[in-house]
Amino acid sequence: MVNPKLQLMVHADNIATSSPQLSYSGVTIESVQRTDNENYLFINLLLDKDVKPGIFEIAFKHGEKTISSYTYELKARKPNSAQRQGFSSKDVVYLITPDRFANGDPSNDSIDGLKEGVNRLSKGGRHGGDLQGIIDNLDYITDMGFTQIWTMPIMENDMQTHSYHGYSTTDYYRVDPRYGSNELYVELSEKAAGQGIGIIQDVILNHIGSEHWWMKDKPSADWINNNGEFSPTSHMRESLHDPHAVKSDITRFNDGWFVPTMPDLNQRNPLLATYLIQNSIWWVEYAQLSGLRVDTYSYSDMRFLSNWTRQIMQEYPNLNVVGEEWSVNPSITSFWQKGSVRHSDYQSWLPSVMDFPTQVKLINALTKPKSWATGLRELYESLASDFVYGDPYNLVVFADNHDMSRIFSQLDEDLDLFKMAMSYVLTTRGIPQVFYGTEILMANPGTEDHGIIRSDFPGGWQDDSSSGFSGKGLSEQQIQIQGFFRKLLNWRKSSTAITQGKLAHYTPQNGLYVYFRYTQEQRVMVILNKNDSITDLPLERYTEMLNGAKTAKNVLTDQHISLGQALSIAAKSALILELQ
Amino acid sequence: MVNPKLQLMVHADNIATSSPQLSYSGVTIESVQRTDNENYLFINLLLDKDVKPGIFEIAFKHGEKTISSYTYELKARKPNSAQRQGFSSKDVVYLITPDRFANGDPSNDSIDGLKEGVNRLSKGGRHGGDLQGIIDNLDYITDMGFTQIWTMPIMENDMQTHSYHGYSTTDYYRVDPRYGSNELYVELSEKAAGQGIGIIQDVILNHIGSEHWWMKDKPSADWINNNGEFSPTSHMRESLHDPHAVKSDITRFNDGWFVPTMPDLNQRNPLLATYLIQNSIWWVEYAQLSGLRVDTYSYSDMRFLSNWTRQIMQEYPNLNVVGEEWSVNPSITSFWQKGSVRHSDYQSWLPSVMDFPTQVKLINALTKPKSWATGLRELYESLASDFVYGDPYNLVVFADNHDMSRIFSQLDEDLDLFKMAMSYVLTTRGIPQVFYGTEILMANPGTEDHGIIRSDFPGGWQDDSSSGFSGKGLSEQQIQIQGFFRKLLNWRKSSTAITQGKLAHYTPQNGLYVYFRYTQEQRVMVILNKNDSITDLPLERYTEMLNGAKTAKNVLTDQHISLGQALSIAAKSALILELQ
Repeated sequence: MVNPKLQLMVHADNIATSSPQLSYSGVTIESVQRTDNENYLFINLLLDKDVKPGIFEIAFKHGEKTISSYTYELKARKPNSAQRQGFSSKDVVYLITPDRFANGDPSNDSIDGLKEGVNRLSKGGRHGGDLQGIIDNLDYITDMGFTQIWTMPIMENDMQTHSYHGYSTTDYYRVDPRYGSNELYVELSEKAAGQGIGIIQDVILNHIGSEHWWMKDKPSADWINNNGEFSPTSHMRESLHDPHAVKSDITRFNDGWFVPTMPDLNQRNPLLATYLIQNSIWWVEYAQLSGLRVDTYSYSDMRFLSNWTRQIMQEYPNLNVVGEEWSVNPSITSFWQKGSVRHSDYQSWLPSVMDFPTQVKLINALTKPKSWATGLRELYESLASDFVYGDPYNLVVFADNHDMSRIFSQLDEDLDLFKMAMSYVLTTRGIPQVFYGTEILMANPGTEDHGIIRSDFPGGWQDDSSSGFSGKGLSEQQIQIQGFFRKLLNWRKSSTAITQGKLAHYTPQNGLYVYFRYTQEQRVMVILNKNDSITDLPLERYTEMLNGAKTAKNVLTDQHISLGQALSIAAKSALILELQ
Repeated sequence: MVNPKLQLMVHADNIATSSPQLSYSGVTIESVQRTDNENYLFINLLLDKDVKPGIFEIAFKHGEKTISSYTYELKARKPNSAQRQGFSSKDVVYLITPDRFANGDPSNDSIDGLKEGVNRLSKGGRHGGDLQGIIDNLDYITDMGFTQIWTMPIMENDMQTHSYHGYSTTDYYRVDPRYGSNELYVELSEKAAGQGIGIIQDVILNHIGSEHWWMKDKPSADWINNNGEFSPTSHMRESLHDPHAVKSDITRFNDGWFVPTMPDLNQRNPLLATYLIQNSIWWVEYAQLSGLRVDTYSYSDMRFLSNWTRQIMQEYPNLNVVGEEWSVNPSITSFWQKGSVRHSDYQSWLPSVMDFPTQVKLINALTKPKSWATGLRELYESLASDFVYGDPYNLVVFADNHDMSRIFSQLDEDLDLFKMAMSYVLTTRGIPQVFYGTEILMANPGTEDHGIIRSDFPGGWQDDSSSGFSGKGLSEQQIQIQGFFRKLLNWRKSSTAITQGKLAHYTPQNGLYVYFRYTQEQRVMVILNKNDSITDLPLERYTEMLNGAKTAKNVLTDQHISLGQALSIAAKSALILELQ
């Protein structure tokens, strides 16, 4: 590793009263740190550049007397691990709720010693989905054309209820046994890689679950924010940037908790900071990840985030890491992305952020009536604001995710608007992300209950009456949309204009929004028509970007059309043309 | 002047064929420039530092023969003119439509030789208001507590129709005779100064009126954009910043015209650029202005704007100049303000911009139902976004202006919301601007016609049945609101916390938004309550900003209250407290 230091957290009764010793070529104990809790000891190791993988014993001594010992393993690195390529605009990310996708191993639905057992009838309960279910359906995912899998968190969540969502970590180093095991996670990663699919881990730096073992014996008094007591966060991320903010509002945002069952971590404690940084690096290395998605990004201490991103990107310069900053203000989301123009001397090495502003504009653009400032103009304006980002081409774009109504519901189950939305997400700049089940029109009619939004994917359970995997029992509409995705995603893979090209767009006119993706080799023209009737698009205005093309292929139908004076665009539709 | 150069535009038949000569101590002809129109000659003069005011003759020669001559006057500067103080957050700006405020001189209502005469019955016609009307009512303006007057443009607009609005300049050096004269404008400025009131000139750099004398004989073929032909602007100011913009969209925005009667100036022509820069400087000096307001700012060439602001601020480092960039995106409005973090190497010396984003948020905050993202939170978020501005304290804030529905109408004539809106505008950071007649609840019910929005101020015409100046015939409500303004504005003048202090605000809670203005000497607390019922405000949260204050004065009622555990805030109200 670039960083020769390694810190070990040791937890045992009165361990702080002992002194550690070890003898292994290339490993030195540089220093030892203790906190106000005698049951913790932190050992700072220094690793030589040429240290060999292997096993060594750490002895904990009182004077000459060894009172206990621990066997530690230095694992070998995978070849070229440091140069691993992260997910990028060449990819389409498939977001999976692992408890709700497919139950590949019913034997692990409930596990002795873990508090919550399976209950598929409960919206907020565990339904039995697991990593084996994803492994079993890699062929489906591949066939559809997805090239990255982001699962909601898979670390142990030994909580009484709602453990299925995964955001209440109780062990940062252990895959929840109800999903499988650490080894099975590696197997998923390796099998996925064999099909050209990368794995993105969902990382939570801000908080833990109240059943985390730390909570029974805190490593230090300042380990948890707000003196370890619940006090809600304000969710006002603006406070971090606001020149008029009062101190108490900044603290209320940063140190407040989400809910009483999610103690908020104080990453200003350098021991905790190191723990979280090492943990993320360990998983990238161990599970051969293609990237990280960071939950509730800005809620963590911002200096820590700077340090966390710096150290991760130092070890893996080509990795991709995307932060979730759920703000609709591009000046706030862009703040966190590396290279953005920002108002302070804050430094960030974060390559990507989730493009929440565009998600909202997309819905507005499709659902609000056209006026001077609304309609497709909103979508145009969203991209026109890209000047605030360090790298707009590395943003993750999406129509929905696991924390909001499904896109089909947001669009009131209007199939035309749905196809327009997905056509946009899959052809605009950035890295598209699709929530599992979107390809078969999963919806949450009449409710915003997260348990319904994250419903079971049909066919993932043995006795399911229909199956998104085989097509059995799907409606004609579902089959049609699944085909639409399969066609578009697989075409997208091969389109250099989409995966590597620049974007150029035109200010919307007459209810039509036109943009191009282009490289030296290929040009793609996308036309969104929001009108309720067929609309003519005179082509003269687009001469600069058409670049002399005389014909084009409709990528969804493979039909060739000639580019004359004007195109006739179907009502409420997206037309994607590969220019020729 | 700092700049020793002076360029003269000479217009006469075949003048380009001649060579100019002059003899005056301290004045040298540095060079002469000609264009593709032989009727124009541009003389570049170099003025010595110690050149004396006086008169000299410029002779235009063919060889030895003088074919014509012109007497030019170098006027003396006013003492300390270069150090003049511009309008600032100490001021409240009164925006007047000069044709619609008061008719002080009925003899100039129609002028022989100017195309449009008076017609008070026509919404878009001239009503006879003039500079004398403003001079006559300086006492009223002073008494109300306004300290700056921004008039809509007063330059000659010799147009067939709609000349009253003033945005179709036909002579950049001549006050429209229907308003008075250049000399009367100076008289207004001097008399206003005598009452502590500054004059802000409305400057139009982007376009002229189609009846401008240039249009009959263009100084050069490229003087007017789009080859002198009408083609509408897209109004898409985003194009200037958008990394994905196509060239044709940038041109369509920048070079497009507003309307066929407003030819769009090509400021990339350096002779035109110099003409506009010199003209602005001349008016500041001649009419002793306290500032400039620049119409349709970003529609002019951006390199020119950089140059225009640099040269003006170089001559008057303490002047204030505010640009109108009607965008609701703070990243776009802030771009133009000096010192803002921006995404390009563009340089601006513009001290201020109009705060359109906050205007929209103010209306939304007061009129939209409360939800997670709406209600007073919008107002909070607007200020929380101030990190994008070079100097948020020098923004011009307003509830409405001459180009939109009057605030009373925007708030559906809800008096409580109206008082909340104006309390906010008059106590938040920045320089408040109030549209004439707002203080007597002028409105535009059921229409957005500009001619109605800019209705006559009652009492400005001899036979008016009611008068905002004397109070005659005003409703009780009007009298009450006029008193509200008079009280608040005159208190504001003396409040260092408001005029010079910082702002600190708290994230809204329970329908209440609280902010403070503060200096070492004074603290002011403002509470906006949007709830329909009396609401308790526990004070513990505000300890940091209350800074130990035990009592406070309600600045509108002069009542003293004690600051105990909580305050009881009236439904739909603004409470402004001076802490003691």
